[in-house]
Amino acid sequence: MIFSLTILGSSSALPTSLRFPTAHVLNVHERLFLIDCGEGAQIQLRRYHLKMNRINHAFISHVHGDHTLGLIGLLSTFNLLGRKNPFTVFAPSEFEEALFFNLKFYANNLTFPVNFVPVDTFKSQVIYEDKHVMVTTLPLHHRVPAVGYLFTEVVDKLNIKKTFIDKYKPGVGNILRIKAGNDYVSSDGTVICNSDITYHSHLPRKYAYCSDTLYSERLVGLVKNVDLLYHEATFSHNDLELARATGHSTAVQAATVASKANVDMLLIGHFSSRYKKIGDLEHEAKQVFEKTVAVSDGQTFTVPEKRNILV
Amino acid sequence: MIFSLTILGSSSALPTSLRFPTAHVLNVHERLFLIDCGEGAQIQLRRYHLKMNRINHAFISHVHGDHTLGLIGLLSTFNLLGRKNPFTVFAPSEFEEALFFNLKFYANNLTFPVNFVPVDTFKSQVIYEDKHVMVTTLPLHHRVPAVGYLFTEVVDKLNIKKTFIDKYKPGVGNILRIKAGNDYVSSDGTVICNSDITYHSHLPRKYAYCSDTLYSERLVGLVKNVDLLYHEATFSHNDLELARATGHSTAVQAATVASKANVDMLLIGHFSSRYKKIGDLEHEAKQVFEKTVAVSDGQTFTVPEKRNILV
Repeated sequence: MIFSLTILGSSSALPTSLRFPTAHVLNVHERLFLIDCGEGAQIQLRRYHLKMNRINHAFISHVHGDHTLGLIGLLSTFNLLGRKNPFTVFAPSEFEEALFFNLKFYANNLTFPVNFVPVDTFKSQVIYEDKHVMVTTLPLHHRVPAVGYLFTEVVDKLNIKKTFIDKYKPGVGNILRIKAGNDYVSSDGTVICNSDITYHSHLPRKYAYCSDTLYSERLVGLVKNVDLLYHEATFSHNDLELARATGHSTAVQAATVASKANVDMLLIGHFSSRYKKIGDLEHEAKQVFEKTVAVSDGQTFTVPEKRNILV
Repeated sequence: MIFSLTILGSSSALPTSLRFPTAHVLNVHERLFLIDCGEGAQIQLRRYHLKMNRINHAFISHVHGDHTLGLIGLLSTFNLLGRKNPFTVFAPSEFEEALFFNLKFYANNLTFPVNFVPVDTFKSQVIYEDKHVMVTTLPLHHRVPAVGYLFTEVVDKLNIKKTFIDKYKPGVGNILRIKAGNDYVSSDGTVICNSDITYHSHLPRKYAYCSDTLYSERLVGLVKNVDLLYHEATFSHNDLELARATGHSTAVQAATVASKANVDMLLIGHFSSRYKKIGDLEHEAKQVFEKTVAVSDGQTFTVPEKRNILV
């Protein structure tokens, strides 16, 4: 089962000839989740052969144009393609007005419903859950209300502990019932709780998206041990004051969050167009956290399945 | 003095991985005029090394998103770059509401003024003139009010007729005065009118932009003899009914306008994403008008100066 992230855009507010504004797509078990939607996101979706009709949700971090201006074009395209499935936008409440004004202006009489779910930018809470993924908000600190999003894979396949099988020797019928989540009832009527005799076959994979934000200690606690952390690194640490003044982070700060949170891999992006050599920002981050990649548009990062081997 | 057109986007409503939505840039004597502004236009401007700060005017044909959704991103970028020069948007009046709503939402406290000039979509009239170019509207027939734009170079350099020089042998001082537009006064007080003894050194170059529109006989009269005619060709003539139903033209119809108007060169674009081989549309048009090019994003078409040689 796939769990992979594709970068559609990696610039900050000023796009360059090589970097589109921010947008990510997370593929969880072949369902695609759009995370921010900068201008041109629909063009990038086509360029990187991502199937638009598998996207049913957009998670918007904040209302700035470099994170949102591609959404009306994408929804207009869905409309022209005769989409029927509902589309849900999660975003800070400020975004609702612009979303529906522009939908009415540019894509009136939609062939599909668009739902808006306002997210609290102060609390960390679960805002979405289906049988594949759970999404939790990550409060950020920017010039306007902003949240990141933590995507946690839902793993529901149960394995039965070997110790139980050796002891009780359950038949095939019982094994199927236990794997479906039921308790075990022995021939003498003893009930053994399902959770005592099973374990998940895999560990949940996790992706945390954090943009745009100042360095935040609170964030460290919220993204502990994730497989993939994306943290904006708009500036070099040499420009720390500029980062602070504009509500952004430096490459060193992004790496500090990654290091403290003990993540598997750090992705940095949202680079200011002032830096011509993005390798320098990557190098800067790597001094603090070695497993850092400065992303480029079109890159895909796949997290392999993590088997839960019970020792 | 340059007169050239660069194609930023050549798709119709659904962009493809190779074609951005519609936007053109006309360079007249190093001043850039933006014509429509589909999503991603600012990215294409950077990709094709066009100097954004030389753009002071946008001419919008109609309010559909594939012709306008790039404008707020571009104006936001100007704002971030600290632009001071006013920017003027010419468009059908319906566009004003969306323009200012989104400017307020996405780019409040602009560093430069944005002026809106509503254009009449029924009359053909001069809406802009400076010392390099004159812009005339071209009423179109689409599902919403729409206009094209005719750009006519202003040529003001005067040459003096050889017959006058041979007869009157004016001195250097007189020659400079006549070239500046003054009448000639001979030593005996005779006044000879400037227009009788001068002619323009060059013929004005002309570019006509016509998108989106049904086939229009009226348009033929308005784009007579232009050097460069861009006419949308969303559909193949095999899909004529679809073109009619959606307010668009076929490649044959675009070529018919070009042929009847006796233009120098026809550019077709705004192709429906249903056509995988755009060469087929070009071939179709060429059967009617040989000097047709099906445009691609990034192409530049330069019209050479046309010296006015008085025989």
